[in-house]
Amino acid sequence: MPSESPHTVGSFLFDYLHQQGITHVFGIPGDFALPTFRWLEKSDLTLITMTHEPSVGFAADGYARMTKKIGVACVTYCVGGLNMLNSVACAYAEKSPLLVISGGPSPNDRKRSDQLIHHKVRTFDSQRKIYDEVTCASAVLLDPETAADEIVRVVRAVQEQSLPGYIEVPYDVVDMLTRAPNIKHYIAPESDVGNLKACVEDAAAKLRAATQPVIIADIELHRFGLTDLAMELAEKCNIPVASTLLSKSVISEHHPLYIGVYAGRMSEEDTQSYVENSDCVIMLGAFISDVLFGFGASSLNPRNMIVVTNEKASVEHAHYDHILFKDFLTHLIAQSLPTFTHESLPSPAPIPLPLTADERGDDITVEDFFRILGLHVGEHNTVVCDTGDAVVGAIRLRTKKSNNFLSDAYYLSMGFAVPASIGAAVAAPNSRVFTIVGDGAFQMTGTELSTAAKYGLKPITIILNNDGYGTQRKILDGSFNEIHRWKYTKVCELLDYGKAYHVRTKGECEAAIKAAVAADEMALIEVIIDRNDYSRSLLRLGEELGKLRDGERKNAK
Amino acid sequence: MPSESPHTVGSFLFDYLHQQGITHVFGIPGDFALPTFRWLEKSDLTLITMTHEPSVGFAADGYARMTKKIGVACVTYCVGGLNMLNSVACAYAEKSPLLVISGGPSPNDRKRSDQLIHHKVRTFDSQRKIYDEVTCASAVLLDPETAADEIVRVVRAVQEQSLPGYIEVPYDVVDMLTRAPNIKHYIAPESDVGNLKACVEDAAAKLRAATQPVIIADIELHRFGLTDLAMELAEKCNIPVASTLLSKSVISEHHPLYIGVYAGRMSEEDTQSYVENSDCVIMLGAFISDVLFGFGASSLNPRNMIVVTNEKASVEHAHYDHILFKDFLTHLIAQSLPTFTHESLPSPAPIPLPLTADERGDDITVEDFFRILGLHVGEHNTVVCDTGDAVVGAIRLRTKKSNNFLSDAYYLSMGFAVPASIGAAVAAPNSRVFTIVGDGAFQMTGTELSTAAKYGLKPITIILNNDGYGTQRKILDGSFNEIHRWKYTKVCELLDYGKAYHVRTKGECEAAIKAAVAADEMALIEVIIDRNDYSRSLLRLGEELGKLRDGERKNAK
Repeated sequence: MPSESPHTVGSFLFDYLHQQGITHVFGIPGDFALPTFRWLEKSDLTLITMTHEPSVGFAADGYARMTKKIGVACVTYCVGGLNMLNSVACAYAEKSPLLVISGGPSPNDRKRSDQLIHHKVRTFDSQRKIYDEVTCASAVLLDPETAADEIVRVVRAVQEQSLPGYIEVPYDVVDMLTRAPNIKHYIAPESDVGNLKACVEDAAAKLRAATQPVIIADIELHRFGLTDLAMELAEKCNIPVASTLLSKSVISEHHPLYIGVYAGRMSEEDTQSYVENSDCVIMLGAFISDVLFGFGASSLNPRNMIVVTNEKASVEHAHYDHILFKDFLTHLIAQSLPTFTHESLPSPAPIPLPLTADERGDDITVEDFFRILGLHVGEHNTVVCDTGDAVVGAIRLRTKKSNNFLSDAYYLSMGFAVPASIGAAVAAPNSRVFTIVGDGAFQMTGTELSTAAKYGLKPITIILNNDGYGTQRKILDGSFNEIHRWKYTKVCELLDYGKAYHVRTKGECEAAIKAAVAADEMALIEVIIDRNDYSRSLLRLGEELGKLRDGERKNAK
Repeated sequence: MPSESPHTVGSFLFDYLHQQGITHVFGIPGDFALPTFRWLEKSDLTLITMTHEPSVGFAADGYARMTKKIGVACVTYCVGGLNMLNSVACAYAEKSPLLVISGGPSPNDRKRSDQLIHHKVRTFDSQRKIYDEVTCASAVLLDPETAADEIVRVVRAVQEQSLPGYIEVPYDVVDMLTRAPNIKHYIAPESDVGNLKACVEDAAAKLRAATQPVIIADIELHRFGLTDLAMELAEKCNIPVASTLLSKSVISEHHPLYIGVYAGRMSEEDTQSYVENSDCVIMLGAFISDVLFGFGASSLNPRNMIVVTNEKASVEHAHYDHILFKDFLTHLIAQSLPTFTHESLPSPAPIPLPLTADERGDDITVEDFFRILGLHVGEHNTVVCDTGDAVVGAIRLRTKKSNNFLSDAYYLSMGFAVPASIGAAVAAPNSRVFTIVGDGAFQMTGTELSTAAKYGLKPITIILNNDGYGTQRKILDGSFNEIHRWKYTKVCELLDYGKAYHVRTKGECEAAIKAAVAADEMALIEVIIDRNDYSRSLLRLGEELGKLRDGERKNAK
């Protein structure tokens, strides 16, 4: 808790966040938020001022995903806050602990509910009501006395649930003195003893009866720091482990038990087959959704599944309430469990082969791009992928144990990667960041590289330019998938920062990546991809998605 | 109503909109919306595909404000729709008739409420619930049978109330046949006869007793096509007329009764004084809010006021329910009313003087920029202003009767102008558009000029570059008001379109504007403004805003 000397609401807020281990805050000011920003400036936190609110949210999210601490996004009332809603929705959907701090009108301004204030929409409560849809807790600090309590309440909820929270700070209340928070004896949640015992015993029994178990280690393990426990289970029983696109590289891809990314029809065939033929799929911390699971979820029979997340636990068709994720893992590991043997296991992403002299002059493809990237991503580097082939192609990207991998592979909002990379670079300055983004997504948030210029960050941004909305073309084509072709390399001149490369062949691509890695400056590499070229994984997915939609339409008629 | 032959939901939707006089739709596709976009492509509407959803909303809004018809914004589920929320909130706050069409999951997808689908946030209803906060009507077309009814219901509400509406279109339902809409005998709203009589009589009596009446003609007059009626009243009684920043140029600035923009402390002193000393201020269609009225609203005594909008009517302290705006005007005009005489009236914006030879080499100021602009805005041109001095400086911009003027002077979201200009240019291809935007706001949505390139539009975009968040600096300064300095002229090279100018002196500025006007291509003019230079009007406002906030804080303590 911050020191005992009297605090204003503003000084408490930022000191408390600093004590939670947060070092940076991302934001854009506006007049309702200026006094809040003044307190931020006086605190021990560093403000990263950005250019556009959608990017503020994604950057704070990138920071949170890297640090596993709260990502803080500080904006102004409505014109800022509402402009950031999609990014916060992404964090909500992917269970990332984002804290939105918004400026707001004073209690006096709000006295008459029909009073019109600039930035006000329907009611003074509109922004908070909207944010309640994408947060686990919210507060409007109208009373300085209780403000510290409210701040602690929201921050704790964000930490416990790994979901976004919202705090609205009136521009005058932020300067007022607050009472030290009334920290009740904190009652940590506990598992229901009976449910836990039953669930663990049933899971252990199922595992003992299994012949081909597999663990799918998904993103909640990372969010809640349970990855090591999950691997302890895998190693104790010698159970193979797959990840999802969201959790790629949370498990080391070099681990002998790792069998690659499970993404339904987008997976490597052997990996897909192994998981879908398993008689005991142990899903840990997984979002079982449509695209993320490559429409394979329907191939997974609940009768063959054990599913445990921060919110629920089930063995086959039975659900068990009030079971803490960590308790399930520790208690299961403590059981008497079998050890499994395997003649061979699917291999994860192919080990990338160096380019041969013959192929250097060939036009680059998505497949070869990720192969080349895999040759040059170094220790402790971070890879951040936007949607479309920028992320699906990464199923086959070979990463190292020390690499971080960020994507919004469940929510799939275009525009995530460039700003999330800013957040990642701020979170881990010694970890060089590779950003992989399509041309369409780059047009949305690409100029947020301005923030890299402002703070001297040096990401390597790689634009896969296939001239339009490539994924959508595969699903249903039309003129609406065409975009204006930018001279993307001019971005470095626009920002007067960084070095740009324009590549078309495999050799050029490798040379650019090597040069970018070696140079101590920001790099922007535009890679020209043929409009009809796709990763193997996306080809499979796109066709399935089209067929599914056609089938559903026929069925519905 | 569209033809009697069977319609699918998609063909009905766009044919019905076409029948409402709409010609263009703004949008960005996504997989849930692709079938909807396919119907759009087949219809008689023209799709303007843009780069980023915040701009889609502002462009549709700009189109609506120019045409007084519905502005249609077509996006995909959540990742598109939620990314556009701020722009729709702006339209809601400023009573602009925007229609949001969003793709969405199928009824089958929604069968199990906890089913996870890519782009889904909290529940399947999250986006609709959020949009209910910023719309007057919404529908989710789960049943193809009633879809046409629902479409008509929402569109009518948008037209009647001049507020945004929301229609969510499942990707399979859009292809299904719908029943022709069940058009009940449409009951138009009517005024309460007794209330109307009492209100009009009281207003007439007040006017007869007045010595210095004034009309403030605000934006709802334009939205509901009542400007001519308001001027009929003014001319019948010889009452002077002011506008607000929102409604600037709705009344011709050359009209003998026009006394300029009333914007409280931001107004020309004579105009402010005339309005605030009036014993009968007739506010027609006005949003009485804080910044728009330059914090002058507190100087306006309700006892001296008659306030009528689409939603309410009051004379002094008495309110009258159920009075249609149009009825009030027609009935008041029919009364026996006095004619007023004036020795002299405040003049609106100063008539701009041509540059003298001596001053051409002087550094340009905000004041002189708007003076020079006023010399060169031609007949039938449109001026679109972003927030800050880009719009406040326009208080003193002299416009012609045939000019359109767009700004978001109530809601004040940065980033409005560049995309709203796209919408304006599409709405009125023969009206050259001048876009005035600050450097901070340009960094938010400036690259939407890509859409101008894509469709061959030729706006003249003028960036007032005062190196940071100028307005905020005046209120409360700090490092958070600093932004990275772009080489803005490089935008034309990035987009491979248009001609760029970089100007610093009055002479250079005028030369650039003249060249841009004469050239048949898009122009981007970067105007270097000293960081400490502000319009006279903003100087007054900023200081007052700072004082008010300090005063409130002292009072609250």
